[in-house]
Amino acid sequence: MSFQNPVFIPGPTNVPEELRRAADMPTMDHRSAHFADILHPALAGVKQVLKTETAEVFLFPATGSGGWETAISNTLSAGDKVLASLNGLFSQKWIDMCQRHGLDVEVAAVPWGHGIPTDRYAEILAADTDHQIKVVLATHNETATGVVSDIAAVRAALDASNHPAMLFVDGVSSIGSMDFQMDKWGVDVAVTGSQKGFMMPVGLAIVAFSAKAMAAIESAALPRWYFDVRDMQAGYKINGYPYTPQVGMINALKMSCNMLLDEGLENVFARHARIAEGVRKAISAWDMSLCAVSPELYSNSVSAILTPQGFDANTLVSHASEKYGLAFGGGLGEVAGKVFRIGHLGSLTDVMTLSGLATAEMCMVDLGLDVKLGSGVAAAQEFYRSDFALNHKAAA
Amino acid sequence: MSFQNPVFIPGPTNVPEELRRAADMPTMDHRSAHFADILHPALAGVKQVLKTETAEVFLFPATGSGGWETAISNTLSAGDKVLASLNGLFSQKWIDMCQRHGLDVEVAAVPWGHGIPTDRYAEILAADTDHQIKVVLATHNETATGVVSDIAAVRAALDASNHPAMLFVDGVSSIGSMDFQMDKWGVDVAVTGSQKGFMMPVGLAIVAFSAKAMAAIESAALPRWYFDVRDMQAGYKINGYPYTPQVGMINALKMSCNMLLDEGLENVFARHARIAEGVRKAISAWDMSLCAVSPELYSNSVSAILTPQGFDANTLVSHASEKYGLAFGGGLGEVAGKVFRIGHLGSLTDVMTLSGLATAEMCMVDLGLDVKLGSGVAAAQEFYRSDFALNHKAAA
Amino acid sequence: MSFQNPVFIPGPTNVPEELRRAADMPTMDHRSAHFADILHPALAGVKQVLKTETAEVFLFPATGSGGWETAISNTLSAGDKVLASLNGLFSQKWIDMCQRHGLDVEVAAVPWGHGIPTDRYAEILAADTDHQIKVVLATHNETATGVVSDIAAVRAALDASNHPAMLFVDGVSSIGSMDFQMDKWGVDVAVTGSQKGFMMPVGLAIVAFSAKAMAAIESAALPRWYFDVRDMQAGYKINGYPYTPQVGMINALKMSCNMLLDEGLENVFARHARIAEGVRKAISAWDMSLCAVSPELYSNSVSAILTPQGFDANTLVSHASEKYGLAFGGGLGEVAGKVFRIGHLGSLTDVMTLSGLATAEMCMVDLGLDVKLGSGVAAAQEFYRSDFALNHKAAA
Amino acid sequence: MSFQNPVFIPGPTNVPEELRRAADMPTMDHRSAHFADILHPALAGVKQVLKTETAEVFLFPATGSGGWETAISNTLSAGDKVLASLNGLFSQKWIDMCQRHGLDVEVAAVPWGHGIPTDRYAEILAADTDHQIKVVLATHNETATGVVSDIAAVRAALDASNHPAMLFVDGVSSIGSMDFQMDKWGVDVAVTGSQKGFMMPVGLAIVAFSAKAMAAIESAALPRWYFDVRDMQAGYKINGYPYTPQVGMINALKMSCNMLLDEGLENVFARHARIAEGVRKAISAWDMSLCAVSPELYSNSVSAILTPQGFDANTLVSHASEKYGLAFGGGLGEVAGKVFRIGHLGSLTDVMTLSGLATAEMCMVDLGLDVKLGSGVAAAQEFYRSDFALNHKAAA
Repeated sequence: MSFQNPVFIPGPTNVPEELRRAADMPTMDHRSAHFADILHPALAGVKQVLKTETAEVFLFPATGSGGWETAISNTLSAGDKVLASLNGLFSQKWIDMCQRHGLDVEVAAVPWGHGIPTDRYAEILAADTDHQIKVVLATHNETATGVVSDIAAVRAALDASNHPAMLFVDGVSSIGSMDFQMDKWGVDVAVTGSQKGFMMPVGLAIVAFSAKAMAAIESAALPRWYFDVRDMQAGYKINGYPYTPQVGMINALKMSCNMLLDEGLENVFARHARIAEGVRKAISAWDMSLCAVSPELYSNSVSAILTPQGFDANTLVSHASEKYGLAFGGGLGEVAGKVFRIGHLGSLTDVMTLSGLATAEMCMVDLGLDVKLGSGVAAAQEFYRSDFALNHKAAA
Repeated sequence: MSFQNPVFIPGPTNVPEELRRAADMPTMDHRSAHFADILHPALAGVKQVLKTETAEVFLFPATGSGGWETAISNTLSAGDKVLASLNGLFSQKWIDMCQRHGLDVEVAAVPWGHGIPTDRYAEILAADTDHQIKVVLATHNETATGVVSDIAAVRAALDASNHPAMLFVDGVSSIGSMDFQMDKWGVDVAVTGSQKGFMMPVGLAIVAFSAKAMAAIESAALPRWYFDVRDMQAGYKINGYPYTPQVGMINALKMSCNMLLDEGLENVFARHARIAEGVRKAISAWDMSLCAVSPELYSNSVSAILTPQGFDANTLVSHASEKYGLAFGGGLGEVAGKVFRIGHLGSLTDVMTLSGLATAEMCMVDLGLDVKLGSGVAAAQEFYRSDFALNHKAAA
Repeated sequence: MSFQNPVFIPGPTNVPEELRRAADMPTMDHRSAHFADILHPALAGVKQVLKTETAEVFLFPATGSGGWETAISNTLSAGDKVLASLNGLFSQKWIDMCQRHGLDVEVAAVPWGHGIPTDRYAEILAADTDHQIKVVLATHNETATGVVSDIAAVRAALDASNHPAMLFVDGVSSIGSMDFQMDKWGVDVAVTGSQKGFMMPVGLAIVAFSAKAMAAIESAALPRWYFDVRDMQAGYKINGYPYTPQVGMINALKMSCNMLLDEGLENVFARHARIAEGVRKAISAWDMSLCAVSPELYSNSVSAILTPQGFDANTLVSHASEKYGLAFGGGLGEVAGKVFRIGHLGSLTDVMTLSGLATAEMCMVDLGLDVKLGSGVAAAQEFYRSDFALNHKAAA
Repeated sequence: MSFQNPVFIPGPTNVPEELRRAADMPTMDHRSAHFADILHPALAGVKQVLKTETAEVFLFPATGSGGWETAISNTLSAGDKVLASLNGLFSQKWIDMCQRHGLDVEVAAVPWGHGIPTDRYAEILAADTDHQIKVVLATHNETATGVVSDIAAVRAALDASNHPAMLFVDGVSSIGSMDFQMDKWGVDVAVTGSQKGFMMPVGLAIVAFSAKAMAAIESAALPRWYFDVRDMQAGYKINGYPYTPQVGMINALKMSCNMLLDEGLENVFARHARIAEGVRKAISAWDMSLCAVSPELYSNSVSAILTPQGFDANTLVSHASEKYGLAFGGGLGEVAGKVFRIGHLGSLTDVMTLSGLATAEMCMVDLGLDVKLGSGVAAAQEFYRSDFALNHKAAA
């Protein structure tokens, strides 16, 4: 196995040298005083990335899915009602998790490629006058479709009817790549993982609980132990953990936050926007379109590209892997075979992106699609090279 | 922070160079065909280490505690009865987890330092004629007290009354260091983690389910999603995962199994026995005794050493850390302050062990204990150097 | 400093993960028996890469320049005459080294961009009837101009007049990337370094001496100690070194040879030829030309591209570095400011190469050159994607 | 191959994690502006370690032997006279190098185990009234015998007769471990390597030239190119090198200097003195003696221990390697078979040292020597643990 080419899957991303080294730490005693110097800066760094001053951050040895389970099992009881939107594979999975936990999920489904239907959320919440709905779920960025939803609008839908439900947001493929304002948006639980915007290996579920979410814990009757935030909270107070912590991963998270904050969060977001826009310029030049149905839904971390009818998009992904040794994302769930995905989040440069676009073009021509070699690359090049001022300012 | 000295905590262990590198893998597409070449050998390797031909192995991004939760949440329903022994902090935690999941735990408590009371298990099981007890829990090696229990005897206790309860074993600090015979002992769920006998970083919960345990899944009503083995099983069939797998960690597990099997499991166990016996020779020379009350309970992965009354054992641990930069394990739970622990599992040599013993001696003298410098070291040296034949045979 | 983009300098190349790890070896006793298991396979591997069965290989802690000095100081005496061609910076440096060692260098200069003038060599050798010329120097691949010379023709020039002079070849930027046939071409000393075709970090001078060169050692009067091959030869016989060897680097060389031989030397050369031809297709599409004046001189490891008159090629190199974070090679010596160089040797893929070409295009447009974005990329893409059969066969 | 035990050879030392990582740097363009940020701090750091304000530092891809050759070939001409002391293998090698370069070496030999005979130096220099002697060579620390010589006394010997000869010092196994005062001692060329006090891998020759040595360059007629400091000096002025620099190694040197200076040079020296003194306490407890004939000659970086007559010391070294997997240094040259060496320089702790001493004891008993297990360890323990105040102050 060779690892020469960058990956273009929507996470895990290319891991920067610095973070691989921070994660690959020799064994230290996690009960020693030194662990505090790793844990607390990591927690503080995550708070800054989430733009929250009041939430409590918890780090579990798990993936983002473990973060979802942390959110619901610590705050809800069997039979509780939650409102969720279904607009892609990952929102679907979270709904499935809720149902398996005995929750009563009101599903606001929209076609894949659409965002959270905030108008319907508003109607449903307004109609829920006896406040049966305890939690509203929102998938900020649907990784399967490359759709970013408007969390501020979800908050507005809640506020419009003064609904007391908590707002839980899956920010797995947005946080660290696109703006996320936990406090301003009134998010009660934010969930992400280490392998996306934080540019790390897989293995840390990162969750943040607002004071309101923390207050919901005591009455929550869903069984939990591994993901119980009370034990984690008690552990942190004495610089420890309820079980053995992943010291290296937490060390890498500390460094990842430092890298993001040193670059400046707005600069990080601008960089993702620039790289994503270049990819979209290429897609336009290929005369193709995104799964996301309108521009305000375009994700800056992943683009899901619709291929022509009759063409199996998965062949492109396997062709790229076999012939060129380069990994794109395939279509998942309902859009399997209909889209291929270019992940453009985390540790990526304009230069690397161009190699992904050039490879996509070769694959498309190899497989008989009517695309002109170099056309998408040229469109992206023109955008990247013209965007110098922004680029320069970002780096300054 | 410097990492010059080996650690003597009972896990995470010193991680061999080869495994650090295997874990620190560049990003690859976990949905590509290459992942199968990592996943399946790792699963097969674990089966060999567990000495099982029939169980199914599952790897979760979690710690051993997540493995406990996998065991119970996939096989039991609220209100189900389980039989457990309490003889240390880790057996206590598993009981607590069961209770928080609404299980009815019959606790067979013994003083810390004792092993599982298999006679009492036999009596309780014999008395349970209507087979209310669904599962018997057994902590193979109590890391807090350095006590190894007799799992074959637990199996015999079940068989004596033909009791159909399943047998779940926590082998976190035994598997890979001491003999574990899943099939022969009739273990239904075995649980361990990556950071002990497998010599890896923390972050993988490793669980194996017998056919009987697999059969119990469908009727088990405890809510679960993250730790649901059905999704994991379905994923493995198509070389995938229900969520993003930790490719590097699984790659390291594959290599760890290869290392253990190349050395030969019996040689690995003999090496642990030899190193542990040297540590025990030193303890005798110091005129001190183990928390484990009788020789058949002595663990080969960790020794918990009782310090004289009036002496706070934790001061020794902090003194070793501060003055000599060396990590021992402190006492936990009921034995906090009464014992300090020398972890001697995983990647360790006679040579390294002697540095730990020498440091323990310096600490004891520094802190006023009546111990002769060099006395324990000499006892261990004599044992290690005489044990050449065994040593030699093991390496051959 | 970030290391996300590949480098396109003509060495050091991008270092494969495997070789970085092989080089980064923990300290071992270089006087222990284990060193033999590293040293001898490395020496044997180099012989295979050089296609020699009879030469002796020596590895010095040095660069390729140290290899040049090894060649001359072990075989010549002050006042000895050597014949050399000057067609670029590196041939010039070797001549300078000879002169500083008191050798009498007959220089056959040609304009930079030309190859070794083998006709003139033939004439000079034929005229040297009393065999004053002891050594003929030949730079196989002029890294400064991207010109590969015909070593077989140099041999033919020697043979035509039955001239007994030895043939010393600088293969620093050819060996491991382009065919090199030490025995067939009658090369007496071959010189290279670790950081080019061997894809390793800088720091090993790799030299091979034919039996004829070995025989010349005793009468050679130039002073030497560090680079004395007799001490090295004596050391190797007892698995040692005259001074402390770089165990990690030699370990990486062993692995590098294995990688090259596993891929198959002819496949390695075909890969370099394919990648280089794609670069040349791009250059043609840009309507630019190479410094190398004719196709048989085109190097497969580096392309030196002439920029239009009045354009300072070095601005392109610094622009690429500053704006895009990508390293090309600048012009050196006589061609400084007139060419920029794209290194395409060692660990490189079609995909990576396209990112280099796309970046070169952006730089050229940014700096006002009349080049169409995507034009060179498209030409290279067409070549790379069509070359599937070859590509496929190479990998098979 | 496993790398669990520390090494006790007198270099290469155990390499700290931080320095391995600094050396294992991904490829960067060594002609880019970033290289200046690595090179110049490394040069400045070396000056501080050497305690010189006026010397110029040069870093060659080579070993310390290359540094010796740099010293003589840049400053002398064939036939020039140098004065050297022969008291071990390494001083002998330097003399051999001089002779092979046609220098006229006046050798002041003493039995191995003795230091430089500064009285004889003084007599010879006083007698050299026409100043034929151009250079005085001095091996600060004879690695073969564990003897440190008094360089200030050599300087005094020169000053006593106002002799203008330059003073060249081999500080390979002293610099960075024991005090070295280049300016105060009037050293004209100081030579060392990366793999001893700097705790790095092998591969960098580190040399410093005083103004007087620099002035000698122009008239020096020995041929040189690779080790010509003029090219190096010219390169540094434009942030470059005469050939490809080892960027990673220079990066590690920069970090190594930072580590030494952060700890504080006097603290580093005190740490070496403490660890060495503990080793010597053990040797006394074993009733053995050092090759170094008197206490003021005892080296703090390596101890060469005389074994009883009739005992082949090399068997101890091979026994330790084969049975215990631990590397000691063997006897070299005249003292081969008579001594074994414990290297105690670079990255080493009291704790690690005790494991080396314990292993030496086991070997000695295994091989029939009359040594009591634990005796040397106890003597070292008593010293290390009592030395808390010093230890503590050093770390503060």
